[in-house]
Amino acid sequence: MGCKKFILIFFLCIGSSFSQSPEGYNLWLEYSKIQQPSLVEAYNDLTTSIYFQGGTNTLKVAKQEMATGLEKMLGRIPDFTNSINPDHTLIVTKGSFLPEAVIKSFEKDLQKIGNEGFVIKSVPHNKKDILVVTANNDIGILYGIFRLLHLIQTGQSLVGIKLVDAPKIDIRMLNHWDNLDRTVERGYAGFSLWNWQKLTDFIDPRYVDYARANASIGINAVSLTNVNANALILTPMYLEKVKALAMVFEPYGIKVYLTARFSAPMEIGGLETADPLDAKVQKWWNDKVREIYGYIPNFGGFLVKANSEGQPGPQNYGRNHVDGANMMATALEPFGGNVIWRAFVYSEHDPEDRAKQAYSEFVPFDGQFKNNVLVQVKNGAIDFQPREPFHPMFGAMPQTPLMMEFQITQEYLGFSTHLVYLPKLFEEVLKSDTYQKGKGSTVAKVVDGSLHNKKISGMAGVANIGTDLNWTGHPFAQANWYGFGRLAWNPDLSSDTIAEEWIKATYTDDEKFVVPIKKMMMNSREAVVNYMGPLGLHHIFDTGHHYGPGPWVGNLSRPEWNPIYYHKADEKGIGFDRTPTGSNATAQYADEVATIFNDPKTCPEEYLLWFHHLPWDYELKNGQTLWNGMALKYQEGVDQVETMIKTWETVKPHITQTQYKEVAMLLKIQLKEAKWWRDACLLYFQTFSKRNLPDGVEKPKQTLEYYKSLRFPFAPGIRPRWN
Amino acid sequence: MGCKKFILIFFLCIGSSFSQSPEGYNLWLEYSKIQQPSLVEAYNDLTTSIYFQGGTNTLKVAKQEMATGLEKMLGRIPDFTNSINPDHTLIVTKGSFLPEAVIKSFEKDLQKIGNEGFVIKSVPHNKKDILVVTANNDIGILYGIFRLLHLIQTGQSLVGIKLVDAPKIDIRMLNHWDNLDRTVERGYAGFSLWNWQKLTDFIDPRYVDYARANASIGINAVSLTNVNANALILTPMYLEKVKALAMVFEPYGIKVYLTARFSAPMEIGGLETADPLDAKVQKWWNDKVREIYGYIPNFGGFLVKANSEGQPGPQNYGRNHVDGANMMATALEPFGGNVIWRAFVYSEHDPEDRAKQAYSEFVPFDGQFKNNVLVQVKNGAIDFQPREPFHPMFGAMPQTPLMMEFQITQEYLGFSTHLVYLPKLFEEVLKSDTYQKGKGSTVAKVVDGSLHNKKISGMAGVANIGTDLNWTGHPFAQANWYGFGRLAWNPDLSSDTIAEEWIKATYTDDEKFVVPIKKMMMNSREAVVNYMGPLGLHHIFDTGHHYGPGPWVGNLSRPEWNPIYYHKADEKGIGFDRTPTGSNATAQYADEVATIFNDPKTCPEEYLLWFHHLPWDYELKNGQTLWNGMALKYQEGVDQVETMIKTWETVKPHITQTQYKEVAMLLKIQLKEAKWWRDACLLYFQTFSKRNLPDGVEKPKQTLEYYKSLRFPFAPGIRPRWN
Repeated sequence: MGCKKFILIFFLCIGSSFSQSPEGYNLWLEYSKIQQPSLVEAYNDLTTSIYFQGGTNTLKVAKQEMATGLEKMLGRIPDFTNSINPDHTLIVTKGSFLPEAVIKSFEKDLQKIGNEGFVIKSVPHNKKDILVVTANNDIGILYGIFRLLHLIQTGQSLVGIKLVDAPKIDIRMLNHWDNLDRTVERGYAGFSLWNWQKLTDFIDPRYVDYARANASIGINAVSLTNVNANALILTPMYLEKVKALAMVFEPYGIKVYLTARFSAPMEIGGLETADPLDAKVQKWWNDKVREIYGYIPNFGGFLVKANSEGQPGPQNYGRNHVDGANMMATALEPFGGNVIWRAFVYSEHDPEDRAKQAYSEFVPFDGQFKNNVLVQVKNGAIDFQPREPFHPMFGAMPQTPLMMEFQITQEYLGFSTHLVYLPKLFEEVLKSDTYQKGKGSTVAKVVDGSLHNKKISGMAGVANIGTDLNWTGHPFAQANWYGFGRLAWNPDLSSDTIAEEWIKATYTDDEKFVVPIKKMMMNSREAVVNYMGPLGLHHIFDTGHHYGPGPWVGNLSRPEWNPIYYHKADEKGIGFDRTPTGSNATAQYADEVATIFNDPKTCPEEYLLWFHHLPWDYELKNGQTLWNGMALKYQEGVDQVETMIKTWETVKPHITQTQYKEVAMLLKIQLKEAKWWRDACLLYFQTFSKRNLPDGVEKPKQTLEYYKSLRFPFAPGIRPRWN
Repeated sequence: MGCKKFILIFFLCIGSSFSQSPEGYNLWLEYSKIQQPSLVEAYNDLTTSIYFQGGTNTLKVAKQEMATGLEKMLGRIPDFTNSINPDHTLIVTKGSFLPEAVIKSFEKDLQKIGNEGFVIKSVPHNKKDILVVTANNDIGILYGIFRLLHLIQTGQSLVGIKLVDAPKIDIRMLNHWDNLDRTVERGYAGFSLWNWQKLTDFIDPRYVDYARANASIGINAVSLTNVNANALILTPMYLEKVKALAMVFEPYGIKVYLTARFSAPMEIGGLETADPLDAKVQKWWNDKVREIYGYIPNFGGFLVKANSEGQPGPQNYGRNHVDGANMMATALEPFGGNVIWRAFVYSEHDPEDRAKQAYSEFVPFDGQFKNNVLVQVKNGAIDFQPREPFHPMFGAMPQTPLMMEFQITQEYLGFSTHLVYLPKLFEEVLKSDTYQKGKGSTVAKVVDGSLHNKKISGMAGVANIGTDLNWTGHPFAQANWYGFGRLAWNPDLSSDTIAEEWIKATYTDDEKFVVPIKKMMMNSREAVVNYMGPLGLHHIFDTGHHYGPGPWVGNLSRPEWNPIYYHKADEKGIGFDRTPTGSNATAQYADEVATIFNDPKTCPEEYLLWFHHLPWDYELKNGQTLWNGMALKYQEGVDQVETMIKTWETVKPHITQTQYKEVAMLLKIQLKEAKWWRDACLLYFQTFSKRNLPDGVEKPKQTLEYYKSLRFPFAPGIRPRWN
């Protein structure tokens, strides 16, 4: 057989093997072969001879990753050597082991990058330019290798490169809401990755791939279990299993956290109380923490949901959040562990606007928490809506580290069938200006700790990861995992840059694909806002499962669980008055912000009905009435999904048939459901507005009664059966 | 770059792409490249020019499968043509379209193979030998293509081949015990494949791969839902989704069945009764069936669990199984659908030996069921134990089609962490002689219908398939799916042959791997019998989840749910007397069989304690006392697992590191649990026998109290939350 023919077969084989294996398993680490010959040559020149200083497990996995990545992308096994010689084209080693001749050029860089940063720099050495990847610690090397592989995969030039990068946030964390029966609360990508039954002895190879993916974007902490916690996770039987996972994650720089059920001392400890001021309770937690560190020396700490939505907490014993958090923090402190205490609280006995309660309950405690307590705050004051104004707690607790809680899983964003690029949402929040220390006091600066010089900082994302072959259900939901990690590393990154990175690493760097798809992603978040809750409408989802519209729901026991509580539609108008004439929630913001929000004329229209109850004929900036404008926004959302479908059709030639079909089917569902949202909401609100739909809005195909009659008893992600 | 170097890279790339993708997804359809050059040449010669007569969807998927398989195995895209020419080396077409010149040589073959069989035959044509794959129907072509690909994958010569094959059983069926919330009762391989939320619009590519795998072994029917049924599956919302799946399966010759909850007319139909003799109820089912066929024209019918373990049934209305089954059969008859009515019944109000109840309840009804009713009987009279004597119903209902129900999922066989090759168990049952029409009246002949000339026959396996990347949790559990399909096609196949087929298709045809691994598989079933329930012990599993030993359990409300009911250990001895001095269950067998079972001296020792209560000092055939012999059997089981571990180590060079490690980890769990079984059971039974453990049996590491204290609240596969 001739060589040409063989080369032909080669590509055919590659092609067919990819088409039979499940698509998407490799995420943004596909390491697909670089096509452009000049690039291949350049990268090959740079990786001809590699000095890679080995040693720890972290360095071993970094080297393994480099070997796999380069081999797949460049088509040859890289040549590693263990001792330094003059022929090297690439040197990978910690700063302390750099060759004398180049060490000077890195001194300043190394001072800047802290424990986790890295430097990728081209420097002259032995009469040629060589590439150096270095860091102060092993984990920096691993991060640097992942970045280098990413640069190669996305076809970027390494000539004269000088890349000095370090994370701006300390704790970059995934929160898994995974139950011990492997169901996942608000999970839409299958079930929990953690196969508790087969642990400790069976280490699913997938755990390693999960750790690789996280490390590649800098995630360094994971909470394994649901915040609606089960105390059994803290018993020896489960701690053994947690240990097994922690050992898999350790080389990848990932610390394990657990959710601590506040009543655990009673449920698994045999005590009669869980009062945080009770000496026996304190001793129980101290002992339990010591026991945990016996299993897991690098244990991260506890994530706690207390006195929220029925979870037990210090208030059950007449104590407060500080009492509860500090008790656990005292236990964790000697081992370097943290308490992450969630601020997502609201009481069924408190008639106050739900949006105000977390602030009211927590801000007075500023300065009272121990140093190893972080208070974790959702991005908005209600609950992960398609759009919320930033949470007023950000910037309001200058002495308390406030950790950001984003939701990556799409509880209120169409589950895993809607293509919604969330970094756009995250960016909007992070760039919001709290004005708490004057102009420029962005949420990003609160979260990264720079605004008030916090000693520790953190960002958490509620994971969208499950057992689905592609991890996230929707192929594009991978971008939300990716983007969360990148923003946790650097909250000042633009969502546009992140989208481009992700597309190129996942699919192709062909501009004919990248440009339209990036545009589609960037517009996708506004589309979902438009067809679910335009102009500041929020929490009008159907009950419990939050799948589809339910603005009419008003029969739930707790008033603030009812959509009607949030939209307050009546014959006069619609919206929640949170100005001084209403709940006065705006007073929780800095004056500069409150002033803007308080006046409907200055309030950004995307928050209009969040802060104001306005008449149906209120005139919007575009001259439309509120009713017409709202209806047209719903229509616009549907139209935007139609555009997404068209865009996807145009890129068909650039991807495999399976890739094309999978997203095409999902977009079809998204369109169907966008129309469902539009029609159900407009028909319902029309019963109050008593106005016709404006021109340009499609007539609903079904009656309001039909939409009200829909039931989804087995919608995924509902509250666990064990809680 | 030179050609040699390129070839080197070629193999490296293939290697690395396989090592990064998840292992095992492709099952026995890996189509890995044929290594031996002479074989590649021979197969290439035979597939140089292929005439493949296209047309229906079934032929399209057959051609697609052939293209994929040949390309992957032989490294080149096969050349298909649409019109017959003299150069063809391979012709694939239905018998009616065979070229004149060869049609004669197939006439007799085609008469033998019925609707689903196929012929693969080498015949002289145009002065050379050509290969012909033919059949009477499209589905036969598909089966023939899968067989041809299997022959190639396993390196078998096609020179002068004459293979005429057809299924011996009509309905070859998987029973999925999948709930609508995607949990799987007795599922240990993740969760349900059926993503009801994303259906109908999202067709997971995995559904196609599932259908391909089934068709490749001849499975032609699947029941999608749990026998502990939910009536919602029969509502339009779900029927739409079932239709979508049925359309995926249809080209692969697979009919969909649903489980019908007997009380559905009340739960979803608004009726006040489900009495099968009530005219309104009958009309409801007639209408419902017509509605279903409106969605799914090739719908298979209903699988029903009635008046069993709390499920509703005709007895709730004072009617009997015939009344219930015939009512549904009447509704299905006009459309060609079947009722599969399960015989797995036992009553908490019936003090009779549970082993006798199904026979007592069903055999009197022989001859009363309508023609489209099959009664589905578990292989043994209790419940899928590691070993049971064959069910006495087999052969006892000459006028009723008895469908075999095997359990592929390992409810009582170590979940998905124990390597147990089940075709050995299935074969043992099928070869058992019922003597109901004299010697040679094997269970296989009852099931395939030949013993009593049944008009329809069937075999069902409770599926072990889930969302795990490798489908079945344990890589070797794939062999149980495979083997079930092969035995449903031909119940006379030997488990040895099947093991060899599977190993070669899945791993390699290298004898250094095949020989030891086949031996390991063939011994594995006896190992699990030894360490779980030797000498006829049965149902001594821990409560509810059936994970691990629980011979001490005696506190369950229903006596026959308690292990102590089954072993009846006391100070005198152990075992269940089912002879005429006891429950007289043996009287349900033919005299020849009963006589053998009744006398402990002639009763096969593997059934000894199933049929007899014997003193601890009873002398076994090997001269050991019963106590010592039992203890040594438990030890032997553990030793056999040790041997499996050693065997697996020896084959390490023949497989990938991931493949090796995965099974090695699972075997480690199996060994740990085998010891747990041995120690827990012997410590418990020792409280009665009051005898020391014989030499050669390892001393237990823990106390009986320790084993009794173990709790597994989240063991997988427990009864669904919705029932």
